[in-house]
Amino acid sequence: MIHFSRSLTRLLGELKKLPGVGDKTALRLAFHLLKSPDNLTALAESLLEVKAGVRFCSVCFGITEDDPCHLCSTERDRTTICVVEEPQDILAMERSRAFKGRYHVLHGALSPLNGITPGDLKIAELMKRLESGAIREVLIATNFTVEGEATALYLTRLIKPLSIRVTRLAHGIPLGSDLEFIDAATVQRAVEGRSEL
Amino acid sequence: MIHFSRSLTRLLGELKKLPGVGDKTALRLAFHLLKSPDNLTALAESLLEVKAGVRFCSVCFGITEDDPCHLCSTERDRTTICVVEEPQDILAMERSRAFKGRYHVLHGALSPLNGITPGDLKIAELMKRLESGAIREVLIATNFTVEGEATALYLTRLIKPLSIRVTRLAHGIPLGSDLEFIDAATVQRAVEGRSEL
Repeated sequence: MIHFSRSLTRLLGELKKLPGVGDKTALRLAFHLLKSPDNLTALAESLLEVKAGVRFCSVCFGITEDDPCHLCSTERDRTTICVVEEPQDILAMERSRAFKGRYHVLHGALSPLNGITPGDLKIAELMKRLESGAIREVLIATNFTVEGEATALYLTRLIKPLSIRVTRLAHGIPLGSDLEFIDAATVQRAVEGRSEL
Repeated sequence: MIHFSRSLTRLLGELKKLPGVGDKTALRLAFHLLKSPDNLTALAESLLEVKAGVRFCSVCFGITEDDPCHLCSTERDRTTICVVEEPQDILAMERSRAFKGRYHVLHGALSPLNGITPGDLKIAELMKRLESGAIREVLIATNFTVEGEATALYLTRLIKPLSIRVTRLAHGIPLGSDLEFIDAATVQRAVEGRSEL
């Protein structure tokens, strides 16, 4: 019988809760950390530091150490808000360097089957931000899944009556792709959204 | 510019030191942990617990919380020692359920190019265990790499003069493999080591 020490068993259990980490990877990570005790301590400390220091921005609900976060407090366009599902989606938008406005993180998407209703998302908080009257456009960047699309539709119906422009990220063929491997629905949307050359 | 908070940057740096974890995986792990603060705390605590509780067995140099470890203190065959490179190799041997003796972890393999000489491994400690006279066989289970083979050869020359039997794990075709995909050197060893049916 393979017998692990109590604390090692506990560590393996915790590691296996991470996404993409199974029995083998957990063992590999654990033994790697055991071989370098300094890294082990540094990892534990940085986890506790993040836990202590990182919170959600009270304006956009992104992840930050300072409240409001740097995206909400810097000189970015105050007339546009990009709505995303999760804090990490802000990174994807920022990497594109195409958006200069502010953000709003919903912390999820509508999913009645999983019991996630508008009250579970930061939608009321978004509507409150829109009340200020300074916002002229809301760019909805929820994921292109059933839940993300449903959320986009729900938000559109909520925001349009306020005479605020509601936009959605374009559908189409990703850069560098082979047309033959793109699914039919995406090609259909790309044809519908074709642009003049 | 994408701007992470100080503590998040530090956590990402620590995560990236783990084997197989790059920029994207580190981000994924970090955001996963941020979404479940309880798991984050539990992981940090179990890391510190392992760091505090886990040590090397003073007999076999495997990983343990109790010294000597359970493999050294239970009623296992005292006449056979299996020599492995790393503590996790003991797991691979134990999973096979084929070995009932004791273990000795070298904590590495000879590698003059990387400056790893016999003095860096637990070889002196192994020789001391052999002095007791109770050991009748040493099964060398170092890896089948250049370094592992060199270590096996070195140990054989050291141990044989003590009139102790020195054995090595068999080379051959792994179970469930397609012969056509096995490298020539392995097939050669499998032919040399063929068994009577």
